[in-house]
Amino acid sequence: MDLTSPGPTLGVVGGGQLGRMLAEAAAPLGAEVVALDPTPDPPAAPVSRATIESDFDDPEGMDALAARADCLTYEIELADPDLLERVGEDAGVPVHPAPETLRTIQDKLVQKRRLREAGVSVPAFRAIESAADLEGALDELGCPAMLKARRGGYDGRGNVPVESPADAEAALGAIEGPAMVEEMVDFERELSVIGINGAGEVATFAPSENVHREEILRETVVPARTSERVRERARAVAREVLDLLSGRGTFGIELFEVGEARSASGSSSGRRPREGGEILVNEIAPRPHNSGHWTIEGALTSQFEQHARAVLGWPLGATARRGPTAIANVLGDTDEPRPAALSGIESALAAPGVSLHWYGKREARPLRKMGHLTAVGDRERAADDAGTDGSGTGPETGAELLARVRELRDGLTFAAAGGDP
Amino acid sequence: MDLTSPGPTLGVVGGGQLGRMLAEAAAPLGAEVVALDPTPDPPAAPVSRATIESDFDDPEGMDALAARADCLTYEIELADPDLLERVGEDAGVPVHPAPETLRTIQDKLVQKRRLREAGVSVPAFRAIESAADLEGALDELGCPAMLKARRGGYDGRGNVPVESPADAEAALGAIEGPAMVEEMVDFERELSVIGINGAGEVATFAPSENVHREEILRETVVPARTSERVRERARAVAREVLDLLSGRGTFGIELFEVGEARSASGSSSGRRPREGGEILVNEIAPRPHNSGHWTIEGALTSQFEQHARAVLGWPLGATARRGPTAIANVLGDTDEPRPAALSGIESALAAPGVSLHWYGKREARPLRKMGHLTAVGDRERAADDAGTDGSGTGPETGAELLARVRELRDGLTFAAAGGDP
Repeated sequence: MDLTSPGPTLGVVGGGQLGRMLAEAAAPLGAEVVALDPTPDPPAAPVSRATIESDFDDPEGMDALAARADCLTYEIELADPDLLERVGEDAGVPVHPAPETLRTIQDKLVQKRRLREAGVSVPAFRAIESAADLEGALDELGCPAMLKARRGGYDGRGNVPVESPADAEAALGAIEGPAMVEEMVDFERELSVIGINGAGEVATFAPSENVHREEILRETVVPARTSERVRERARAVAREVLDLLSGRGTFGIELFEVGEARSASGSSSGRRPREGGEILVNEIAPRPHNSGHWTIEGALTSQFEQHARAVLGWPLGATARRGPTAIANVLGDTDEPRPAALSGIESALAAPGVSLHWYGKREARPLRKMGHLTAVGDRERAADDAGTDGSGTGPETGAELLARVRELRDGLTFAAAGGDP
Repeated sequence: MDLTSPGPTLGVVGGGQLGRMLAEAAAPLGAEVVALDPTPDPPAAPVSRATIESDFDDPEGMDALAARADCLTYEIELADPDLLERVGEDAGVPVHPAPETLRTIQDKLVQKRRLREAGVSVPAFRAIESAADLEGALDELGCPAMLKARRGGYDGRGNVPVESPADAEAALGAIEGPAMVEEMVDFERELSVIGINGAGEVATFAPSENVHREEILRETVVPARTSERVRERARAVAREVLDLLSGRGTFGIELFEVGEARSASGSSSGRRPREGGEILVNEIAPRPHNSGHWTIEGALTSQFEQHARAVLGWPLGATARRGPTAIANVLGDTDEPRPAALSGIESALAAPGVSLHWYGKREARPLRKMGHLTAVGDRERAADDAGTDGSGTGPETGAELLARVRELRDGLTFAAAGGDP
């Protein structure tokens, strides 16, 4: 195994912020990125060797990508597994994670069945073909429940909470295509584990605690503010999940932690009573994940570098943390789409130990992910500030970091005058 | 001050490894790089928005660079200050650091005079126009002394040690153009401080200790293994130097620490007796510096991110350390130039807390800088490995990290069979 110049090229389906951060992380390793995306000049463009403007399901574009790549991967579930498989075979280029894994994960019902068959704990769910199916399922699972499109949803799109059987018809109308329904898990907190299937090795990062609003990730804090037993259990569950996924790469594994004193509330109950601290798998992303952005500054190797290493078949890096870490997403806060201009960044730039990540999207849209802020708590930093050698100085806690990064994020806006078109 | 999409473009004269790492660091801030370099496909290319193939002194190329840039900067002293000044004015684009600063630094004699006039301690030196001048200077400064080309030298090129007055003629013949001579400082250790002139603020990183062989930097360790008093003095001297340099940006300030029991050895002595722990300024680089690569993983903000922030007029980031850090340069170890293929990287990639930086140069040449390895000592990592909370667990020391990163680097070679053309 040699490092060469030019280094290997990762052909990446998708050129959004995940592709951009993958290119940033691949560069020090000497690996280059060519990204395929339907958007002209997508976020990954300025740091990629080249971009190919193409729909994800366009065979011509995908052939062009494979022709330039030493290895194919994807940063979005909308990639086409059949086409990936075909162009990879035609060009003699490996695809990671395996197209089969993408196929399983793309259909949430197939994904959940696969997990359940393997003995992994998941929320109770039912396949739904009609309003009658849904009404029957609600009887078993209780209300409210979560109706989900089996395909294509992300950032809460395609998920519809159903409050009562009377809403079944309307809820189904709001979903396009095949659906499934899940019990609404009365979780204690949402966790996730970023895991990596490498070449003959597996690695997991410390579980993060994730705060969602409107089903969009707002903040992440590491370590998750739960017991060490739960954190260990979450990592163990993630390893079970990784074992089911073929092909190499970074995966985001979203989990529910069910609380100590949890019992089935709501109306009727096909709900099983839960053990306190039980971990249920919510969803798997076959790619680096928003809740893993903390690893860029907060861990010895980032989830993006791990993805590059894994896909190339190189040894994985260490996943240990550098310190407690919190991130806050910067979302579009305008009512209408408008050219992206973010005001108020001076405080965030000047804050010690805070890092800014700007994704370079041209247009701010309501709740669109535009960037994020990261704060890492550091004993050395506290010591440096205090002019001591650090002994006896504790780093900031996760909660303190979360408060700090939230406040900085809340000082940012796309709605100021400077952002006018 | 807004973040926009696309973000500001840094027009960078030079597209080597410093330009590459600058582009890697600018990307998360949303800033883009266009690099000008005479080499086709230089190291910065894969992570830059564009590269312009042009000599540094070609007005047409430089105009093209200025036309695409919101701000001009340089990562190599070979940039032409007059041309930078002219194209910046013509295009209405600021140049940082100021062309005047580059002009001063490019001529080592002018640089040293400027420092001495400002009361900064420097080694004794003389301007040299002839062999007679040099012989006279050797009488005053003692032998051996260091003869230096006033312009164009780097990585030891243009520096010739002179052992005796009898060698004066030959030494001068080995130098092209105007020259100067300096006393050979019998230093305790070589230090450097990376400093940044920002917009109305100044920042310095902790001093590093630098190990050279054949006048090429081999390893750097932070904190420098000297007294806290010397480290503070080095930072204070760096701030004096920064105060003399106009324009914004990151500077590498190379220093000699003169030992406690130091007295003028050698023959005669125009050499002043030195205070123990005295700090002398050796040379200034008007750009990020090899001895500052430790900041990428070892500090809260890297020297490259600081350079981007400074040049853009944005607030600087915190310079505090994340932990003790050591880097080892990966140099070309072949007898002849050959296509670059580095063998033995598995151990370095698998080593916990070690980061690899590969510059993507096409050809390995004897002692050419091809990449570097960084190791950061981390309390959390030690704790994670031990399964404890980190209390009572010390991070690795600088000396341990240096030994580790040296050993890993020494396991790398360009000379293995896989590297054959």
